[in-house]
Amino acid sequence: MSVASAGEFGLIARVTARLGSGATVLLGPGDDAAVVSAPDARVAASTDVLVEGRHFRRDWSSATDVGHRAAAANLADIAAMGAVPTALLVALCIPTDLEVRWAEELADGLGAEAALVGASVVGGDMSSSPTLTIAVTALGDLGGRAPVVRSGARPGDVVALAGRIGYAAAGYTVLSRGFRTPKLLVEAYRRPEVPYRAGPQAARLGATSMIDVSDGLLADLGHVASASEVGIDLRSGAFEIPAQMRDAAHALGIDPYAWVLGGGDDHALAATFPAQVALPDDWRVIGRVVDGTGLTVDGKPYKGSAGWDHFR
Amino acid sequence: MSVASAGEFGLIARVTARLGSGATVLLGPGDDAAVVSAPDARVAASTDVLVEGRHFRRDWSSATDVGHRAAAANLADIAAMGAVPTALLVALCIPTDLEVRWAEELADGLGAEAALVGASVVGGDMSSSPTLTIAVTALGDLGGRAPVVRSGARPGDVVALAGRIGYAAAGYTVLSRGFRTPKLLVEAYRRPEVPYRAGPQAARLGATSMIDVSDGLLADLGHVASASEVGIDLRSGAFEIPAQMRDAAHALGIDPYAWVLGGGDDHALAATFPAQVALPDDWRVIGRVVDGTGLTVDGKPYKGSAGWDHFR
Repeated sequence: MSVASAGEFGLIARVTARLGSGATVLLGPGDDAAVVSAPDARVAASTDVLVEGRHFRRDWSSATDVGHRAAAANLADIAAMGAVPTALLVALCIPTDLEVRWAEELADGLGAEAALVGASVVGGDMSSSPTLTIAVTALGDLGGRAPVVRSGARPGDVVALAGRIGYAAAGYTVLSRGFRTPKLLVEAYRRPEVPYRAGPQAARLGATSMIDVSDGLLADLGHVASASEVGIDLRSGAFEIPAQMRDAAHALGIDPYAWVLGGGDDHALAATFPAQVALPDDWRVIGRVVDGTGLTVDGKPYKGSAGWDHFR
Repeated sequence: MSVASAGEFGLIARVTARLGSGATVLLGPGDDAAVVSAPDARVAASTDVLVEGRHFRRDWSSATDVGHRAAAANLADIAAMGAVPTALLVALCIPTDLEVRWAEELADGLGAEAALVGASVVGGDMSSSPTLTIAVTALGDLGGRAPVVRSGARPGDVVALAGRIGYAAAGYTVLSRGFRTPKLLVEAYRRPEVPYRAGPQAARLGATSMIDVSDGLLADLGHVASASEVGIDLRSGAFEIPAQMRDAAHALGIDPYAWVLGGGDDHALAATFPAQVALPDDWRVIGRVVDGTGLTVDGKPYKGSAGWDHFR
């Protein structure tokens, strides 16, 4: 059945029926607005939009995959402030010939990813559009802590990373060359594994700055360096390149560091910490904050790859 | 200059520079998420999306008009819960050949409409897309009051309306027939005048239900009747039809009540109140809540017009 034959209200009812509701939801979907708890009298809020053809392809990702990824991109932004996500709102623009099943499975993915952190889809809007578009807003609870912003890094801090890096970019490259394996990389592109809990954890540990790596590690740490008016030097030896990534890079004639340093979409978290902070296993040190400006790798400007140039 | 030549970060910088920031904003645009105050430990949140060709046309409305309308549609949803809007987040999907000036003027409209209620644009996202799309999320403060939902209307309540009704639908009809006047109607379509303050006012007065009239008065009060398990009877004599609307309807061979009862987009607020409540001038009584189901006009089922059928 197409969404046109289900009708707007029919589709909303079908999709809403599939969504759960968590403890943070005081009033869920179905009224003019939802009401979400904001225990410390502040709410963190972020919006990210995915456009078919630019951010996803229906032949590369299932509807559930796209739902997971749309939710993850937004939930990661909330985690990157040191907050715990509470709610998602979703504006869905869909071609009238789209199958209802696709929209339902998208909702399943959105709801399942939100449930990983105890959040729920609390509202949304639907419209027909020639271009399949998913705009998601995430809300979050800072738990009484100050938000961890981009501008607090200080010379002497260590730079640390939580989560995988380069996997999704490698998966994207593999898919765009017409392959469907290695599964590790392709699945990482389809459904990022975001280190959500590392965000509030970093805030509690006294992180001086934090960012969600969505544009690529060098680009995003470049935002931190610029906002903090410092330089950042990364150690290339700090990054583990898994065998599947190394093999795929070799087969495709690509430097795997192009994926690690230049690729986005894994939604790793990068943060800076005072040097004396004992970091738990979720975080691994990848570099340090220095006097100066901009990013270096092993003390030198990075001129490695098309990946990096492209993402700039 | 096109948005493609400005680049994503250039465009974001230009647009952000035009936005003001109100007292509710604890952390504005530029980080992974914004932080907005939520004084009573709850936040009302709603999302509405406008798609070019379906919700607006660039030859009918200026970019500033579209910004006003996109903001108004969302701010009205917050007001309809009895809340005061605090913040907007905007996902903007734009064709690469769009002029930067259009995006800047859109931001001006969004910011100016938000400023009417003391709210600010606190964040957003941009992507290129073949289809110009504006998804807005509004946040709001309930001020310690219970949200006014759709399900609380009780037989014996009066039904009251705040704001203009039918003006925008009439303006849309006039534009779609190729006319640019009467100015009153065309301007009402381009920039709704939303009775924002009437929302929290109704909550304080003890409104039993409330809704933002966006799909048409009968359709939206139909949602209230259905959620509240009551009937609603409207008095046709309660609606003032301004001379310009009457004249335009006559010239076009249209029943003006099709616009008043079936037209959306003015973002009037409709609410039900206990009969003993003394209503201020912002609210005028247009009917009453009765035992039963569904909507009647002057005690009879309304079969007036294509407008009504169309909006169903």
